[in-house]
Amino acid sequence: MKIRIGILGYGNLGKGIECALKQNADMELVGVFTRRNPDKVTILSEGVKVYTVDELMDKKDDIDVLILCGGSATDLPKQTPEYAKYFNVVDSFDTHAKIPEHFAAVNKAALENNKVAMISCGWDPGMFSLNRLYGGAVLPQGSAYTFWGKGVSQGHSDAIRRIEGVANAIQYTIPLDKALEAVRSGSNPNFTAREKHLRECFVVAEDGADLARIEQEIKTMPNYFADYDTIVHFISEETLKKEHAGMAHGGFVIQSSKTGWNGENTAIIEYSLKLDSNPEFTSLVLVAYARAVYRMKQEGMSGCKTVFDVAPAYLSPMSGEELRAQLL
Amino acid sequence: MKIRIGILGYGNLGKGIECALKQNADMELVGVFTRRNPDKVTILSEGVKVYTVDELMDKKDDIDVLILCGGSATDLPKQTPEYAKYFNVVDSFDTHAKIPEHFAAVNKAALENNKVAMISCGWDPGMFSLNRLYGGAVLPQGSAYTFWGKGVSQGHSDAIRRIEGVANAIQYTIPLDKALEAVRSGSNPNFTAREKHLRECFVVAEDGADLARIEQEIKTMPNYFADYDTIVHFISEETLKKEHAGMAHGGFVIQSSKTGWNGENTAIIEYSLKLDSNPEFTSLVLVAYARAVYRMKQEGMSGCKTVFDVAPAYLSPMSGEELRAQLL
Repeated sequence: MKIRIGILGYGNLGKGIECALKQNADMELVGVFTRRNPDKVTILSEGVKVYTVDELMDKKDDIDVLILCGGSATDLPKQTPEYAKYFNVVDSFDTHAKIPEHFAAVNKAALENNKVAMISCGWDPGMFSLNRLYGGAVLPQGSAYTFWGKGVSQGHSDAIRRIEGVANAIQYTIPLDKALEAVRSGSNPNFTAREKHLRECFVVAEDGADLARIEQEIKTMPNYFADYDTIVHFISEETLKKEHAGMAHGGFVIQSSKTGWNGENTAIIEYSLKLDSNPEFTSLVLVAYARAVYRMKQEGMSGCKTVFDVAPAYLSPMSGEELRAQLL
Repeated sequence: MKIRIGILGYGNLGKGIECALKQNADMELVGVFTRRNPDKVTILSEGVKVYTVDELMDKKDDIDVLILCGGSATDLPKQTPEYAKYFNVVDSFDTHAKIPEHFAAVNKAALENNKVAMISCGWDPGMFSLNRLYGGAVLPQGSAYTFWGKGVSQGHSDAIRRIEGVANAIQYTIPLDKALEAVRSGSNPNFTAREKHLRECFVVAEDGADLARIEQEIKTMPNYFADYDTIVHFISEETLKKEHAGMAHGGFVIQSSKTGWNGENTAIIEYSLKLDSNPEFTSLVLVAYARAVYRMKQEGMSGCKTVFDVAPAYLSPMSGEELRAQLL
């Protein structure tokens, strides 16, 4: 009997979940649920139906784990606590500052209704968080470094698009090699934001817009760009669509520490991701944790969980014996 | 109240545990237990006593977790099941092929006596195993690669020392850059042993020994060297002591996979360690898991555990709230 998965929301992440399920033989897709007109939504999986979100409750008993593929800004803060009343759920809530309140709301709903709800799953938060925890636990006197990129930051791209005269924009976050090398050398450097990442922007301006003003507004924008070295290129919409539609991303989590009685030795732990498709990888993480959610529920657990709360063995379809014999 | 730790066995690993405890403020060392004459053993920690192994049982109620620092060949197969009857324990048993039987023996003792016993802890088995599991769970259709080194292999060094005419020897396992680059390119290569690692040997010959024969015996030794490209250098005992006494090690665990509906994209996860001191890092891992053992015991768990069974949050001294707010 396979683990029965439902997908709520069919954007890049929903599509990624379909691809991820294709790679996991112990799972099957029950249906895709959308706020759009289902007749207008074409999915990849043959023989699987698209339903309206209103039909979700009718399928309550057919779904073991519901994967919520909405956005963190407005969808998930409402959806996850609501659906955790009726389903075991997994989400990818990634607004780091609001995780504590999201956890509290989801935990209450899941505990009261005896469901398991996994939040903030993916790679950051997610696999990167795990590596920050493992790194800090093993090298407690060390320094932790997270680098992102090269990849598109949706938040920074949106910020540029809000500037007057900007028709479209894509912003790449780029980790600086010099900073990475300094960390890998074991020198435990302290960085300013500018020393860790570069920001490169590809901007489509509206006809007749003042390019110098736009560039100035980008480079001086507080929080987003002012503390970084920023490069601005003006390009056509056509070039943007052709050359900047990719969804590659990645990054590094590095823990560097001294070891030995007098700190005479150096130890460096480095974890990195190189991803052609950010949403496809995120989806694979969500699906692995959907397996964990299913198993934890089978064992009688309930409440809100994060990657920190899940024993690694729950993620693998292999048994404890197989894991010990083959992977330990 | 601190977590009270005992150390059994005072070689490189026992010394490493002392160093690791110095970096973890929530733990304290109760005593070092040795099979040698305690008067002849000088430890690093001030105000901590060295006891004979026979005194260990008298200290049963003073030790929360006993860290077993013996060898995997003969010490741990006896010690861990025996001491798991009376103590919560952590060991670094690393004979991969014998882990299932070690687990069974330790699990029986720990369950019958309501103790938590953590086996095969360190970096391989240990942190590398974790990364093989996480990598395989997240990218299930991918290929997994483990590279070791550059670092000394005790087993291979010992094998050379058993050859007639050899007075001393050190063998370095060296991962081949070309292989690492092929894996990082996402080409999912299949390697022979020879294509992944190089073996470099520094050998001290006895006076008048036949160097050509020794070199030939090394290079053709089944299992250990025959399947590898092997370089042999003959050096003096003095040079060996001066230039090859270091305990640096490290390695890489890489998972490479295709993602997307038709496998059109590539995802690479890479975890690596660069360690000036292998035993000091191993000890830091053992101590983090000693904290986990203590907490699991507090929560009423018992039995044999491996890194696969431990939810990451148990490793950190931070609370769940702190972890979610600061590391997720």
